[in-house]
Amino acid sequence: MINTFVHYYRVRHNETDFTGRMSLPAFGDCLLDIAGLHAMDIGTGIDTLQHQGLTWVIAGMKFKMSRLPLINDRFNIETHVSAYSRISTQRDFVAYDNSGKFAEVSSEWLIIDMNTRRPVFINEVLPQLESVCVSEGMLPKFKHLRPCNFDVAAENERTIGYSDLDVNRHLYSMRYLQMALDTFGTEAGSVRRIAEVDINFVSEVLGGEQVRVVRRSNGNVHDIEMLRDGKAVFRAEFVTEN
Amino acid sequence: MINTFVHYYRVRHNETDFTGRMSLPAFGDCLLDIAGLHAMDIGTGIDTLQHQGLTWVIAGMKFKMSRLPLINDRFNIETHVSAYSRISTQRDFVAYDNSGKFAEVSSEWLIIDMNTRRPVFINEVLPQLESVCVSEGMLPKFKHLRPCNFDVAAENERTIGYSDLDVNRHLYSMRYLQMALDTFGTEAGSVRRIAEVDINFVSEVLGGEQVRVVRRSNGNVHDIEMLRDGKAVFRAEFVTEN
Repeated sequence: MINTFVHYYRVRHNETDFTGRMSLPAFGDCLLDIAGLHAMDIGTGIDTLQHQGLTWVIAGMKFKMSRLPLINDRFNIETHVSAYSRISTQRDFVAYDNSGKFAEVSSEWLIIDMNTRRPVFINEVLPQLESVCVSEGMLPKFKHLRPCNFDVAAENERTIGYSDLDVNRHLYSMRYLQMALDTFGTEAGSVRRIAEVDINFVSEVLGGEQVRVVRRSNGNVHDIEMLRDGKAVFRAEFVTEN
Repeated sequence: MINTFVHYYRVRHNETDFTGRMSLPAFGDCLLDIAGLHAMDIGTGIDTLQHQGLTWVIAGMKFKMSRLPLINDRFNIETHVSAYSRISTQRDFVAYDNSGKFAEVSSEWLIIDMNTRRPVFINEVLPQLESVCVSEGMLPKFKHLRPCNFDVAAENERTIGYSDLDVNRHLYSMRYLQMALDTFGTEAGSVRRIAEVDINFVSEVLGGEQVRVVRRSNGNVHDIEMLRDGKAVFRAEFVTEN
């Protein structure tokens, strides 16, 4: 059982966008993967929880990046639990390639009951989390995003399909992010120069549901909202470099 | 330089569908990944070709599977070039987990000029491919699929976005497959019992283009066609177990 967990990754062909750099959702896949590996190692994995009718859900993330790796590049991610309360935990990630640190990401997690879909008290379910918590150097938490007044720059509609769902049978977290990025269009030179992202996962989205994804932009700040029946289920703010 | 190349994979969270089994497109990602690794090893990789204004494109695939691995399972893939002609090569894959062989896949590849998008003669560009070819035990090639007369069971429309494109700036091959599977809906218990798939990649699809994906089914045979302006750009046939 180790407090700080490290794992190595290699950027596969399917993990890059058309620029040949790793896409942000594919980088996010790796973060969620190492979160799962570390959680298994400390006995707090999703498989342990599911035996009790519980599961982890992610409430928000904050990314700060100087770059993303290129196809076939190797990089490593370090992760640890950085905060622990009755209803949520924070997990931090730092990613390094041969040139040094390229990304810092924080994430906030809840445990929900799979039937009621409501949060439960983490200290009752996983008291051992407190002992692995490393609070020193804790990364900043995501901003709570509010409805935004910028002009609408783009919007898409999507029906949630089979390939969008994860083992929790709801929209996979990195698919929200992918749909948000798709509002930038395929021209988007700006897509690869994203420096900072705040993400709020507001509500679960299920298969067959229809969502509308709206991007509002003002200079290098882009606010994206995903709506179902007019209500926000996801918000993200991207800050791109000039 | 080795004729038969082996690589190990582990099924990540994001690579499973809601049943907890690896999705077919995610398995395909691994096949394309190892194809790239082997091609690099024998000096026939996409990076080598791109310096000459050329690139690999996939023309078709045939999958035969008894099962797909579960989340966190480890498996390995063996691959080699099994046929070589002036205009195409066949690459075969066999995948094994702890219980033995679970999938055999063949794939056909062309080299195209990145400007004209037309095929070039492989023997002129990569004569060394012939010497690594292992034709013994060659797997059957995909069927050439024709327009199908079964009743329409489902259809979807999609606009090709940023996240659908690969480094060749066209629709990523496994995204065609993902969109084909999405016609089965999120109910689809059948999705995980696919035994055989034939795939024809007919035409490139570019960002911003609109496609219609139509599934026609008759018992356990499902024919899927992707159309752009009424013309087929992709066909697949899935045979599911009863």
